[in-house]
Amino acid sequence: MVSRTDDPRHLGQCNKRSDAMSPEIDLMISIHLLHETLEARIEAADLDQTVPKNDILMLIRLTEPMRMGSLAEEMLVLPSTLTAIADRLEEAGLIRRRRDPEDRRAWLLDVTDKGRALQSHIMALSAEMFRSVTGLSAAEIGALGQMMHKVRRNIIECGYTQELMK
Amino acid sequence: MVSRTDDPRHLGQCNKRSDAMSPEIDLMISIHLLHETLEARIEAADLDQTVPKNDILMLIRLTEPMRMGSLAEEMLVLPSTLTAIADRLEEAGLIRRRRDPEDRRAWLLDVTDKGRALQSHIMALSAEMFRSVTGLSAAEIGALGQMMHKVRRNIIECGYTQELMK
Repeated sequence: MVSRTDDPRHLGQCNKRSDAMSPEIDLMISIHLLHETLEARIEAADLDQTVPKNDILMLIRLTEPMRMGSLAEEMLVLPSTLTAIADRLEEAGLIRRRRDPEDRRAWLLDVTDKGRALQSHIMALSAEMFRSVTGLSAAEIGALGQMMHKVRRNIIECGYTQELMK
Repeated sequence: MVSRTDDPRHLGQCNKRSDAMSPEIDLMISIHLLHETLEARIEAADLDQTVPKNDILMLIRLTEPMRMGSLAEEMLVLPSTLTAIADRLEEAGLIRRRRDPEDRRAWLLDVTDKGRALQSHIMALSAEMFRSVTGLSAAEIGALGQMMHKVRRNIIECGYTQELMK
Protein backbone atom coordinates (compact mmCIF):
# COMPACT_ATOMS: atom_id res chain seq x y z
CA MET A 1 0.00 0.00 0.00
CA VAL A 2 1.30 3.46 -0.87
CA SER A 3 0.93 5.74 2.12
CA ARG A 4 -0.63 9.13 1.44
CA THR A 5 2.20 10.75 3.39
CA ASP A 6 4.57 9.64 0.62
CA ASP A 7 2.53 11.51 -1.99
CA PRO A 8 4.25 14.92 -2.31
CA ARG A 9 1.08 16.53 -3.71
CA HIS A 10 -0.83 15.52 -0.61
CA LEU A 11 1.88 16.78 1.74
CA GLY A 12 2.14 20.02 -0.22
CA GLN A 13 -1.56 20.58 0.13
CA CYS A 14 -1.40 19.94 3.88
CA ASN A 15 1.38 22.47 4.35
CA LYS A 16 -0.34 25.08 2.21
CA ARG A 17 -3.57 24.84 4.19
CA SER A 18 -1.73 24.97 7.53
CA ASP A 19 0.08 28.17 6.61
CA ALA A 20 -3.11 29.92 5.61
CA MET A 21 -5.23 28.76 8.52
CA SER A 22 -4.66 29.93 12.08
CA PRO A 23 -3.08 27.16 14.19
CA GLU A 24 -5.92 27.40 16.71
CA ILE A 25 -8.67 26.81 14.12
CA ASP A 26 -6.61 24.04 12.58
CA LEU A 27 -6.35 22.40 16.02
CA MET A 28 -10.06 22.75 16.67
CA ILE A 29 -10.76 20.93 13.41
CA SER A 30 -8.29 18.15 14.33
CA ILE A 31 -9.71 17.76 17.83
CA HIS A 32 -13.23 17.59 16.45
CA LEU A 33 -12.16 14.91 13.96
CA LEU A 34 -10.40 12.83 16.65
CA HIS A 35 -13.34 13.13 19.03
CA GLU A 36 -15.90 12.10 16.41
CA THR A 37 -13.73 9.18 15.26
CA LEU A 38 -13.29 7.89 18.83
CA GLU A 39 -17.05 8.20 19.48
CA ALA A 40 -17.83 6.29 16.27
CA ARG A 41 -15.30 3.55 17.10
CA ILE A 42 -16.67 3.17 20.63
CA GLU A 43 -20.19 3.01 19.17
CA ALA A 44 -19.09 0.38 16.62
CA ALA A 45 -17.18 -1.69 19.18
CA ASP A 46 -20.32 -2.02 21.28
CA LEU A 47 -18.20 -2.83 24.32
CA ASP A 48 -20.90 -4.23 26.52
CA GLN A 49 -24.50 -3.99 25.43
CA THR A 50 -25.82 -4.56 28.93
CA VAL A 51 -24.13 -1.43 30.33
CA PRO A 52 -25.05 2.08 28.99
CA LYS A 53 -22.17 4.27 27.77
CA ASN A 54 -22.39 6.77 30.65
CA ASP A 55 -22.16 3.93 33.12
CA ILE A 56 -19.02 2.64 31.38
CA LEU A 57 -17.53 6.12 31.70
CA MET A 58 -18.01 5.89 35.44
CA LEU A 59 -16.70 2.35 35.68
CA ILE A 60 -13.39 3.14 33.93
CA ARG A 61 -12.80 6.09 36.26
CA LEU A 62 -13.03 3.89 39.36
CA THR A 63 -9.45 2.65 39.24
CA GLU A 64 -9.45 3.29 42.99
CA PRO A 65 -12.22 3.91 45.56
CA MET A 66 -13.65 7.42 45.11
CA ARG A 67 -16.06 9.68 46.94
CA MET A 68 -19.26 10.35 45.06
CA GLY A 69 -18.72 14.11 45.19
CA SER A 70 -15.24 13.92 43.60
CA LEU A 71 -16.47 11.56 40.93
CA ALA A 72 -19.44 13.81 40.02
CA GLU A 73 -17.08 16.77 39.74
CA GLU A 74 -14.67 14.82 37.56
CA MET A 75 -17.39 13.44 35.32
CA LEU A 76 -19.06 16.87 35.06
CA VAL A 77 -22.45 15.51 36.05
CA LEU A 78 -24.90 16.62 38.72
CA PRO A 79 -24.89 14.55 41.94
CA SER A 80 -28.42 13.30 41.13
CA THR A 81 -27.25 12.00 37.73
CA LEU A 82 -24.28 10.30 39.40
CA THR A 83 -26.50 8.65 42.00
CA ALA A 84 -28.69 7.19 39.24
CA ILE A 85 -25.66 5.76 37.43
CA ALA A 86 -24.21 4.38 40.68
CA ASP A 87 -27.56 2.71 41.47
CA ARG A 88 -27.57 0.94 38.09
CA LEU A 89 -23.95 -0.22 38.42
CA GLU A 90 -24.57 -1.46 41.95
CA GLU A 91 -27.74 -3.27 40.80
CA ALA A 92 -25.63 -4.98 38.09
CA GLY A 93 -23.12 -6.07 40.75
CA LEU A 94 -20.31 -4.04 39.16
CA ILE A 95 -19.66 -1.57 41.99
CA ARG A 96 -20.42 -1.30 45.71
CA ARG A 97 -20.82 1.59 48.15
CA ARG A 98 -18.93 1.55 51.41
CA ARG A 99 -18.22 3.95 54.29
CA ASP A 100 -15.12 6.12 53.86
CA PRO A 101 -12.78 5.04 56.71
CA GLU A 102 -11.38 8.60 56.80
CA ASP A 103 -14.82 10.20 57.19
CA ARG A 104 -17.59 7.93 58.43
CA ARG A 105 -20.26 10.31 57.07
CA ALA A 106 -19.03 9.97 53.50
CA TRP A 107 -19.49 7.11 51.04
CA LEU A 108 -16.89 5.64 48.72
CA LEU A 109 -17.66 3.92 45.44
CA ASP A 110 -15.54 0.87 44.70
CA VAL A 111 -15.47 -1.73 41.93
CA THR A 112 -16.40 -5.37 42.67
CA ASP A 113 -14.45 -8.33 41.24
CA LYS A 114 -17.07 -8.65 38.49
CA GLY A 115 -16.75 -4.91 37.80
CA ARG A 116 -12.94 -5.16 37.80
CA ALA A 117 -13.04 -7.84 35.08
CA LEU A 118 -15.30 -5.72 32.84
CA GLN A 119 -13.20 -2.64 33.61
CA SER A 120 -9.96 -4.37 32.56
CA HIS A 121 -11.56 -5.67 29.39
CA ILE A 122 -12.89 -2.21 28.42
CA MET A 123 -9.62 -0.47 29.27
CA ALA A 124 -7.55 -2.86 27.17
CA LEU A 125 -9.90 -2.55 24.19
CA SER A 126 -10.07 1.25 24.52
CA ALA A 127 -6.31 1.68 24.78
CA GLU A 128 -5.78 -0.48 21.70
CA MET A 129 -8.46 1.49 19.84
CA PHE A 130 -6.90 4.82 20.82
CA ARG A 131 -3.48 3.73 19.58
CA SER A 132 -4.80 2.51 16.25
CA VAL A 133 -6.97 5.61 15.67
CA THR A 134 -4.19 8.09 16.50
CA GLY A 135 -1.20 6.15 15.17
CA LEU A 136 0.90 7.68 17.96
CA SER A 137 3.83 5.92 19.66
CA ALA A 138 3.88 5.36 23.42
CA ALA A 139 6.28 8.32 23.80
CA GLU A 140 4.02 10.58 21.76
CA ILE A 141 1.00 9.48 23.79
CA GLY A 142 2.94 10.41 26.93
CA ALA A 143 3.81 13.87 25.58
CA LEU A 144 0.25 14.48 24.40
CA GLY A 145 -1.03 13.33 27.78
CA GLN A 146 1.11 15.87 29.63
CA MET A 147 -0.11 18.69 27.41
CA MET A 148 -3.73 17.62 27.75
CA HIS A 149 -3.39 17.44 31.56
CA LYS A 150 -2.42 21.09 31.47
CA VAL A 151 -5.46 21.84 29.29
CA ARG A 152 -7.74 19.89 31.63
CA ARG A 153 -6.47 21.77 34.68
CA ASN A 154 -7.00 25.09 32.88
CA ILE A 155 -10.56 24.19 31.89
CA ILE A 156 -11.42 23.25 35.48
CA GLU A 157 -9.61 26.21 37.11
CA CYS A 158 -11.28 28.72 34.78
CA GLY A 159 -14.71 27.33 35.58
CA TYR A 160 -15.59 26.41 31.99
CA THR A 161 -17.01 23.13 33.26
CA GLN A 162 -20.03 24.92 34.74
CA GLU A 163 -21.55 25.03 31.25
CA LEU A 164 -21.17 21.27 30.89
CA MET A 165 -22.90 20.03 34.03
CA LYS A 166 -25.88 17.91 33.13
CA MET B 1 -6.66 33.73 43.66
CA VAL B 2 -5.02 30.54 44.85
CA SER B 3 -4.46 28.26 41.87
CA ARG B 4 -5.51 24.64 42.30
CA THR B 5 -2.14 23.57 40.91
CA ASP B 6 -0.54 25.07 44.03
CA ASP B 7 -2.64 22.86 46.27
CA PRO B 8 -0.42 19.82 46.98
CA ARG B 9 -3.42 17.64 47.86
CA HIS B 10 -4.96 18.33 44.43
CA LEU B 11 -1.69 17.68 42.61
CA GLY B 12 -1.18 14.49 44.57
CA GLN B 13 -4.61 13.27 43.61
CA CYS B 14 -3.96 14.09 39.93
CA ASN B 15 -0.73 12.11 39.94
CA LYS B 16 -2.26 9.17 41.73
CA ARG B 17 -5.11 8.90 39.24
CA SER B 18 -2.74 9.20 36.26
CA ASP B 19 -0.58 6.35 37.50
CA ALA B 20 -3.53 4.04 37.96
CA MET B 21 -5.31 4.86 34.73
CA SER B 22 -3.93 3.88 31.33
CA PRO B 23 -2.54 6.94 29.51
CA GLU B 24 -4.83 6.25 26.55
CA ILE B 25 -8.02 6.30 28.62
CA ASP B 26 -6.79 9.36 30.45
CA LEU B 27 -6.26 11.10 27.09
CA MET B 28 -9.69 10.09 25.82
CA ILE B 29 -11.24 11.70 28.89
CA SER B 30 -9.18 14.89 28.36
CA ILE B 31 -10.05 15.08 24.66
CA HIS B 32 -13.72 14.57 25.44
CA LEU B 33 -13.59 17.38 28.02
CA LEU B 34 -11.80 19.78 25.65
CA HIS B 35 -14.20 18.98 22.81
CA GLU B 36 -17.31 19.51 24.94
CA THR B 37 -15.92 22.75 26.39
CA LEU B 38 -15.12 24.15 22.94
CA GLU B 39 -18.59 23.20 21.67
CA ALA B 40 -20.24 24.88 24.67
CA ARG B 41 -18.14 28.02 24.23
CA ILE B 42 -18.95 28.21 20.50
CA GLU B 43 -22.62 27.74 21.34
CA ALA B 44 -22.48 30.47 24.01
CA ALA B 45 -20.57 32.89 21.76
CA ASP B 46 -23.33 32.68 19.15
CA LEU B 47 -20.91 33.93 16.51
CA ASP B 48 -23.42 34.85 13.84
CA GLN B 49 -27.05 33.97 14.32
CA THR B 50 -27.84 34.32 10.63
CA VAL B 51 -25.40 31.56 9.59
CA PRO B 52 -25.89 27.93 10.80
CA LYS B 53 -22.91 26.28 12.53
CA ASN B 54 -22.18 23.81 9.71
CA ASP B 55 -22.04 26.69 7.26
CA ILE B 56 -19.52 28.49 9.48
CA LEU B 57 -17.40 25.34 9.48
CA MET B 58 -17.28 25.53 5.69
CA LEU B 59 -16.59 29.26 5.64
CA ILE B 60 -13.54 29.04 7.94
CA ARG B 61 -12.06 26.28 5.77
CA LEU B 62 -12.14 28.46 2.66
CA THR B 63 -8.90 30.32 3.36
CA GLU B 64 -8.14 29.76 -0.34
CA PRO B 65 -10.28 28.69 -3.33
CA MET B 66 -11.11 24.98 -3.07
CA ARG B 67 -12.73 22.35 -5.25
CA MET B 68 -16.04 21.10 -3.92
CA GLY B 69 -14.80 17.49 -3.92
CA SER B 70 -11.75 18.25 -1.77
CA LEU B 71 -13.82 20.30 0.63
CA ALA B 72 -16.45 17.57 1.05
CA GLU B 73 -13.67 15.06 1.77
CA GLU B 74 -12.07 17.37 4.30
CA MET B 75 -15.33 18.21 6.03
CA LEU B 76 -16.38 14.54 6.06
CA VAL B 77 -19.73 15.29 4.48
CA LEU B 78 -21.46 13.80 1.45
CA PRO B 79 -21.26 15.90 -1.77
CA SER B 80 -25.04 16.47 -1.59
CA THR B 81 -24.72 17.91 1.93
CA LEU B 82 -21.86 20.14 0.80
CA THR B 83 -23.88 21.42 -2.18
CA ALA B 84 -26.73 22.42 0.14
CA ILE B 85 -24.36 24.35 2.42
CA ALA B 86 -22.65 26.02 -0.54
CA ASP B 87 -26.05 27.07 -1.91
CA ARG B 88 -26.96 28.74 1.38
CA LEU B 89 -23.61 30.55 1.69
CA GLU B 90 -23.83 31.72 -1.94
CA GLU B 91 -27.42 32.90 -1.38
CA ALA B 92 -26.16 34.93 1.63
CA GLY B 93 -23.46 36.49 -0.57
CA LEU B 94 -20.64 34.96 1.51
CA ILE B 95 -19.07 32.68 -1.13
CA ARG B 96 -19.13 32.36 -4.93
CA ARG B 97 -18.59 29.49 -7.36
CA ARG B 98 -16.20 29.92 -10.27
CA ARG B 99 -14.62 27.71 -12.94
CA ASP B 100 -11.30 26.13 -11.98
CA PRO B 101 -8.74 27.66 -14.42
CA GLU B 102 -6.73 24.41 -14.22
CA ASP B 103 -9.71 22.24 -15.16
CA ARG B 104 -12.63 23.98 -16.86
CA ARG B 105 -15.01 21.14 -15.95
CA ALA B 106 -14.45 21.65 -12.22
CA TRP B 107 -15.83 24.33 -9.89
CA LEU B 108 -13.97 26.21 -7.20
CA LEU B 109 -15.57 27.71 -4.12
CA ASP B 110 -14.19 31.07 -3.08
CA VAL B 111 -15.06 33.60 -0.37
CA THR B 112 -16.49 37.03 -1.32
CA ASP B 113 -15.38 40.26 0.38
CA LYS B 114 -18.44 40.06 2.63
CA GLY B 115 -17.57 36.44 3.44
CA ARG B 116 -13.93 37.37 4.09
CA ALA B 117 -14.97 39.93 6.70
CA LEU B 118 -17.15 37.40 8.55
CA GLN B 119 -14.43 34.75 8.19
CA SER B 120 -11.77 37.02 9.75
CA HIS B 121 -14.10 37.95 12.60
CA ILE B 122 -14.93 34.31 13.37
CA MET B 123 -11.31 33.19 13.11
CA ALA B 124 -10.09 35.88 15.50
CA LEU B 125 -12.80 35.11 18.05
CA SER B 126 -12.23 31.35 17.75
CA ALA B 127 -8.47 31.60 18.13
CA GLU B 128 -8.86 33.78 21.23
CA MET B 129 -11.41 31.34 22.63
CA PHE B 130 -9.14 28.34 21.99
CA ARG B 131 -6.23 30.01 23.77
CA SER B 132 -8.30 30.93 26.82
CA VAL B 133 -9.92 27.48 27.07
CA THR B 134 -6.65 25.55 26.74
CA GLY B 135 -4.33 27.98 28.53
CA LEU B 136 -1.55 26.89 26.16
CA SER B 137 1.26 29.17 24.96
CA ALA B 138 1.84 29.78 21.24
CA ALA B 139 4.77 27.32 21.32
CA GLU B 140 2.64 24.66 22.99
CA ILE B 141 -0.15 25.22 20.47
CA GLY B 142 2.43 24.71 17.71
CA ALA B 143 3.67 21.45 19.24
CA LEU B 144 0.13 20.19 19.82
CA GLY B 145 -0.76 21.14 16.23
CA GLN B 146 2.09 19.05 14.83
CA MET B 147 1.03 16.03 16.84
CA MET B 148 -2.62 16.45 15.89
CA HIS B 149 -1.68 16.74 12.19
CA LYS B 150 -0.10 13.32 12.48
CA VAL B 151 -3.26 12.00 14.15
CA ARG B 152 -5.44 13.54 11.42
CA ARG B 153 -3.36 11.96 8.66
CA ASN B 154 -3.58 8.58 10.40
CA ILE B 155 -7.36 8.80 10.76
CA ILE B 156 -7.76 9.63 7.05
CA GLU B 157 -5.22 7.06 5.81
CA CYS B 158 -6.76 4.27 7.86
CA GLY B 159 -10.21 5.04 6.45
CA TYR B 160 -11.82 5.72 9.85
CA THR B 161 -13.56 8.71 8.28
CA GLN B 162 -15.92 6.45 6.35
CA GLU B 163 -17.96 6.01 9.53
CA LEU B 164 -18.34 9.76 9.90
CA MET B 165 -19.70 10.72 6.46
CA LYS B 166 -23.10 12.27 6.78
